[in-house]
Amino acid sequence: MREIKTRTKIKIPFFDLDPMNIVWHGNYVKYIEIARCDFFKKINYTYDEMKKDGVMYPIAKMDFKFIKSAKFNDEIEVETILKELEPAIMFKYIIYHNNEKILCANTMQIGVSIETGESLFEAPKKLKKAIDEFVE
Amino acid sequence: MREIKTRTKIKIPFFDLDPMNIVWHGNYVKYIEIARCDFFKKINYTYDEMKKDGVMYPIAKMDFKFIKSAKFNDEIEVETILKELEPAIMFKYIIYHNNEKILCANTMQIGVSIETGESLFEAPKKLKKAIDEFVE
Amino acid sequence: MREIKTRTKIKIPFFDLDPMNIVWHGNYVKYIEIARCDFFKKINYTYDEMKKDGVMYPIAKMDFKFIKSAKFNDEIEVETILKELEPAIMFKYIIYHNNEKILCANTMQIGVSIETGESLFEAPKKLKKAIDEFVE
Amino acid sequence: MREIKTRTKIKIPFFDLDPMNIVWHGNYVKYIEIARCDFFKKINYTYDEMKKDGVMYPIAKMDFKFIKSAKFNDEIEVETILKELEPAIMFKYIIYHNNEKILCANTMQIGVSIETGESLFEAPKKLKKAIDEFVE
Repeated sequence: MREIKTRTKIKIPFFDLDPMNIVWHGNYVKYIEIARCDFFKKINYTYDEMKKDGVMYPIAKMDFKFIKSAKFNDEIEVETILKELEPAIMFKYIIYHNNEKILCANTMQIGVSIETGESLFEAPKKLKKAIDEFVE
Repeated sequence: MREIKTRTKIKIPFFDLDPMNIVWHGNYVKYIEIARCDFFKKINYTYDEMKKDGVMYPIAKMDFKFIKSAKFNDEIEVETILKELEPAIMFKYIIYHNNEKILCANTMQIGVSIETGESLFEAPKKLKKAIDEFVE
Repeated sequence: MREIKTRTKIKIPFFDLDPMNIVWHGNYVKYIEIARCDFFKKINYTYDEMKKDGVMYPIAKMDFKFIKSAKFNDEIEVETILKELEPAIMFKYIIYHNNEKILCANTMQIGVSIETGESLFEAPKKLKKAIDEFVE
Repeated sequence: MREIKTRTKIKIPFFDLDPMNIVWHGNYVKYIEIARCDFFKKINYTYDEMKKDGVMYPIAKMDFKFIKSAKFNDEIEVETILKELEPAIMFKYIIYHNNEKILCANTMQIGVSIETGESLFEAPKKLKKAIDEFVE
């Protein structure tokens, strides 16, 4: 599979800061979710599409490495890289601020049938097609 | 209707603080929700009960008056007072820290039928019964 | 004083949804804060400027009226209207989705000297100047 | 070093749920922070103590493995295990619900001098003493 990347800009809101005047570390989970949703939107496979395909992709694993901290009003950019689609969806995220890497993260999502609750190790056809079309 | 009150203790977590080292004001919406859920649990009318009665009670209005700020590890106490049950559920909340009032708030919730989406101006019978039994 | 308005677009993230698949009501406190910060940025009186002026503006009161609910990926628009500057800053907020009003809110902020902790009933000169220049 | 463990109970609040009616995955970062703060409190080395020692312990790395989901009103229990103290603080967390493991997580925190911003690879003496006394 060829690597697919999208980039998403996020502006740090005040309410995400902690007493050290930097983003509280747990909020980066939100930023990579915004970026992941944006990835799916950009490849044209939306959340509603996923539902129609009868599949959910809950997070099974996630890890974060914090390099630098973001501050109020910083415009950060999340690079979202699809590493694997099957048997599980693996994303890598790199967050930049002023072209400096400030965070690396990874998530693994396992497909689950909405109807039966069973794990699905194959991605929906429409998702594969969406990726193929985005690559071209 | 006789006023019914319950009291709920909450300990301020670190992630609720803002750069001024005090609780970010928006987090008090969470504290009064914890207290309101605790109220319903204490009168023995749970969220599941509500669902079975086919009714939801979304927040239609809320207001807050901030008097003092809570800090990390503070043990605050929310007094939750049912002011009206029909046509809408009205709660008043007073938050105390070390017996000092630090916040007053009010919420109004309007009953909505889960099935039809219509507004319900009468409270479910089980809820009224639960209140009567709690008062005794 | 002439009314000053700014408008701020916000896209609803997934993590702000509740089990009813709509935005959890407490999250609107975040949206109006984003809009308020954007207001100050647009009139060219930033948070750093405020700090240099030795003043903070904590929220003293806030109220919300919920009309309709926002959903995942909705692009809402917050209209932020400065109603009063002294003795306290009063903002009114109207949130729209597809040109329909979905929420009204108000906040009152009282100036506090960072150094002494005293209440300030007069707005910093630079803030007044920023408003005058924005109006022109 | 002998392993030290503490256990912390947390009740799942409504506002932590997502549209699937389960806890949104990012909220577990909060639960392990509550547990970690509780650990330090139980060994009698508080946040204020840490500040007096002139050191902060920001999160440098964290990882999560999700096994099962928690729901509204569930009483979960976080087991917090100190794995290493130097050169960095390493905690392992296991979250249980009804004696079933629902999540495993790890964090790495690197000491930073509040004054100089330099990394500190030795733990404060008071922290070491607190641990020794807790073990006994």
